[in-house]
Amino acid sequence: MSTARGLWVTFEGGDGVGKTTQARLLQEALEAEGRTVVRTREPGGSDVGRLVRDIVLHHRGDIAPRAEALLYAADRAHHVATVVRPAIGRGEVVIQDRYLDSSVAYQGAGRVLDAGEVRALSLWAAEGALPDVTVLLDLDPAAARRRLDADDKPFDRLEAEKEEFHARVRDAFLALAADEPARFLVLDASRPVTELAGAVRARVAAALDAPGGDVGGGR
Amino acid sequence: MSTARGLWVTFEGGDGVGKTTQARLLQEALEAEGRTVVRTREPGGSDVGRLVRDIVLHHRGDIAPRAEALLYAADRAHHVATVVRPAIGRGEVVIQDRYLDSSVAYQGAGRVLDAGEVRALSLWAAEGALPDVTVLLDLDPAAARRRLDADDKPFDRLEAEKEEFHARVRDAFLALAADEPARFLVLDASRPVTELAGAVRARVAAALDAPGGDVGGGR
Repeated sequence: MSTARGLWVTFEGGDGVGKTTQARLLQEALEAEGRTVVRTREPGGSDVGRLVRDIVLHHRGDIAPRAEALLYAADRAHHVATVVRPAIGRGEVVIQDRYLDSSVAYQGAGRVLDAGEVRALSLWAAEGALPDVTVLLDLDPAAARRRLDADDKPFDRLEAEKEEFHARVRDAFLALAADEPARFLVLDASRPVTELAGAVRARVAAALDAPGGDVGGGR
Repeated sequence: MSTARGLWVTFEGGDGVGKTTQARLLQEALEAEGRTVVRTREPGGSDVGRLVRDIVLHHRGDIAPRAEALLYAADRAHHVATVVRPAIGRGEVVIQDRYLDSSVAYQGAGRVLDAGEVRALSLWAAEGALPDVTVLLDLDPAAARRRLDADDKPFDRLEAEKEEFHARVRDAFLALAADEPARFLVLDASRPVTELAGAVRARVAAALDAPGGDVGGGR
């Protein structure tokens, strides 16, 4: 049996800030050290989650806003219970693209539902589980758009309204990070990729060396 | 445009107490008076709800308890927003088989999740909407079983544990009715069908004559 302690790392930030690249580099670095890594994401990181995602993405016609929030919370509940907690229990490192901070930031910026209520819903779904480390890749939305354009990835034309929306999402992420400085590592995503990867690795190494504990909430 | 006021009536109680029969008789009586009636149910009373129901019923493997509760809440949110509220807004009568009282009673009796939390989740999903009238058909679980056996309907053998579970469900329903006497009409379901139907019709007629208001919560 492994005596390594498990760890849960989430990557947050808008589209185009480099979450996937940094998650992959962290995975490679940890695997090179002999750690077992589970790469996952929300929504859609579990079997039930993929069914839920199908409903949200492919349903013809509108879904009531609260119904949509509850479907995402159901995905979260099943994902945390059946993927994240078991992996951490086996001493593995979970590297996850987006978690509840995304729900709160996007919902808060969209202003349809109350962000505090969405956070409470997510925490109930996950039985209070919070990551050990959350890396927020912070980038000006205009710079993120240029980056996606350069990659030839499809990206909506940002009208004034959308530009403002993405600026609100960024502000919401920064506010969440300010509320929980111990959990968040905020990085300027315009810095070189290898520099960012080094900062992430250093923070994760420190977390792996820190005294152990259960997955969030109960600490 | 109709000037009739809408009304929302739910039927609650264990399996085999006669909810379907009484809902049908109420529908026939109201339609004979010229009212437009919408018969519906939870779970599965909307398009999204049927997709959710498919996940819960046909998923191979367990679903985490909170994920299941959240899926049912999503069904509820979409059903209330897209079926119940619009019908009441058009001045129609909604007759519904099971609503949040069932979630609370069964969850409380099962003792996996906290019944108060399940109720709060349902109310958030439905934006606080509560029926105008809830008919609780109360019956001793052993009598309900005999009734289903007589109808040749398939019904699980009640082992001691199940018998106790159904007794707890009944107690939970009665406790909910005691908490909200203005909303609930509790009937002894062992009484003759036509007598019960008369009691339901009288209560619904009184509600239709009462001063109007919006769907629950905001009164």
